[in-house]
Amino acid sequence: MKLDDLIHHTSEWLKGTGPYSDIVISSRIRLARNLANIPFPHRLNRKQAQEVLELVKLAIQKVDYLKNCLFIELHQLDSLDKQFLIERHLMSYEHARSDNYKGLVLDTTEVISIMVNEEDHLRLQVMQSGFNLFEAWNIINRIDDLLSEHLDFAFYPEWGYLTSCPTNTGTGLRGSVMLHLPALVMSRQINRILAAIAKLSFTTRGLYGEGTEASGNFFQVSNQVSLGHNEEEVISNINALIKQVIEQEEQTRQNLLTNQRAMLEDKIWRSFGILKNAFIISSQETIDLLSMVRLGVDLKIIKGIDRSVINELFLITQPAHLQKIENKRLSTQERDLKRAEIIRNRLQDVK
Amino acid sequence: MKLDDLIHHTSEWLKGTGPYSDIVISSRIRLARNLANIPFPHRLNRKQAQEVLELVKLAIQKVDYLKNCLFIELHQLDSLDKQFLIERHLMSYEHARSDNYKGLVLDTTEVISIMVNEEDHLRLQVMQSGFNLFEAWNIINRIDDLLSEHLDFAFYPEWGYLTSCPTNTGTGLRGSVMLHLPALVMSRQINRILAAIAKLSFTTRGLYGEGTEASGNFFQVSNQVSLGHNEEEVISNINALIKQVIEQEEQTRQNLLTNQRAMLEDKIWRSFGILKNAFIISSQETIDLLSMVRLGVDLKIIKGIDRSVINELFLITQPAHLQKIENKRLSTQERDLKRAEIIRNRLQDVK
Repeated sequence: MKLDDLIHHTSEWLKGTGPYSDIVISSRIRLARNLANIPFPHRLNRKQAQEVLELVKLAIQKVDYLKNCLFIELHQLDSLDKQFLIERHLMSYEHARSDNYKGLVLDTTEVISIMVNEEDHLRLQVMQSGFNLFEAWNIINRIDDLLSEHLDFAFYPEWGYLTSCPTNTGTGLRGSVMLHLPALVMSRQINRILAAIAKLSFTTRGLYGEGTEASGNFFQVSNQVSLGHNEEEVISNINALIKQVIEQEEQTRQNLLTNQRAMLEDKIWRSFGILKNAFIISSQETIDLLSMVRLGVDLKIIKGIDRSVINELFLITQPAHLQKIENKRLSTQERDLKRAEIIRNRLQDVK
Repeated sequence: MKLDDLIHHTSEWLKGTGPYSDIVISSRIRLARNLANIPFPHRLNRKQAQEVLELVKLAIQKVDYLKNCLFIELHQLDSLDKQFLIERHLMSYEHARSDNYKGLVLDTTEVISIMVNEEDHLRLQVMQSGFNLFEAWNIINRIDDLLSEHLDFAFYPEWGYLTSCPTNTGTGLRGSVMLHLPALVMSRQINRILAAIAKLSFTTRGLYGEGTEASGNFFQVSNQVSLGHNEEEVISNINALIKQVIEQEEQTRQNLLTNQRAMLEDKIWRSFGILKNAFIISSQETIDLLSMVRLGVDLKIIKGIDRSVINELFLITQPAHLQKIENKRLSTQERDLKRAEIIRNRLQDVK
């Protein structure tokens, strides 16, 4: 498996399958783990950092379940590769910032990724399409168990897993759900919902995680606290919250269909019309318009497009993906032209 | 001929034929005339106003050239009819404001219209498609001559024709040319051009004449002075000015095609995409978007539409036209829906 092969693959987070996939894009569980008796990444010297990389690499090789995984050292990647992996949600911005003794483990299906020497020695991530946190938990729990047979994780009975940042101490678990909430945004209920989420100690972020703004009506909701509850409890709490948000979005969509159908059709079809005809389009506008078209497909207002086409467009219109497809560096202007061309071609036969 | 028959007819000003019709929508000559020994309209009593109406009606009947004309007394029209005639540029807002002893003479081809008891006793208007002021002049001059055989026009040798407002005294002539100048607007040269036009004692107005803002890149340029020159001189002056504006617009279009083709195609095709897909659209947005689509057709960027389709859409999407077509009163919201539906249907088969 080579990194570039991923271009022809739809990331797990954009497959558009799984439960409630008209509202929930993807579910993700992340576990923070550190090796015992080795300083946290920001305190590592070169030798120790190299040792962490080697220990993780060896452990991965010993775990049969992970035998199809790619082990990448970040210095092997150019900036485009890194951006490409960030766009596929397989790596954080933070991890990409420097490549000293940093690693990334990826499986071919893009369900599993493990960052080595990010904020913690290991950041395990499992992604599932749709609303499926427990399935993600089952997979990541198994990987955690298998790896712990070969790695000595820092664990203190009273506190749980030790982590570089105390907010992750305990389970080291963060569950995140990426939601598509166009109706709540359109009906201006979203701020009320986000405020309620914040009060319950959950955080909301944009499409690309920490530090990014919500865009195209996408909101990533995660737990903030990982101490004091076991993993199942944490996940159950997120699940309960997300179910409520899903219900509100569903109900608002139905309300809009009943009471403001023309306004809804107008927004959806205009977005489609612009995407199908533009010659210059930014990444941000593309996300915003695709968000409306996806709503149109989900509400069966637009019938000639499969949801997979929309999802593919979300992915391949991003800057690094465009450049990977064209196999060369492109300026912002060149990307805006190429992006529009790809979208026009893809939507040409849709009426 | 009945008023409603006009719905199935494309007004002269929107035919899209005639010289330079890619830039000049229409040319119009208006003559102000008053009957001798009768006060100007704003000083008329009922009896005198009725007398003017009768005298004009009789004269029209006696002129063979005008035998196919409709003679309408404004009190016969409802507000929708009046709005409809304004939208077709056959009558002014001013004329429609009240209907006491006011008349309108229309020919079946919509080339000729004569308002009776507007600001002057007679306001003769002849419209021609494209850049064709001299042809309009030839026609209106003939009508003026024929009518003066039956009507005694107020004329003072030293000043020329007498008019209610002194700015019209002399020839009583106003020549107007409706220009479509999207390239000059897009390249931000329009303000410089409009300032130059104003300095030369010409005025610029919007689509619907006096008091209306320029919209959809349409500008109506007219002479301000009608005293001190004969008719041919006045028209030659406008002609010379308009030729320069046409050249500048043409050159700017070519510059845009050469240097900013993608930007141009983007604007044009986005406008097309929105028109083809919107479910709610205002009159103003329609004009703005149709303006861009017309540019696309004129520059052969859009090939699947005939200019006549665009022109027809300009006309039938206006408020009174929509209501005439639907044969009922429609609220603003209902019109915005109906307008979008008509446009979608009309553009459905265009790719």
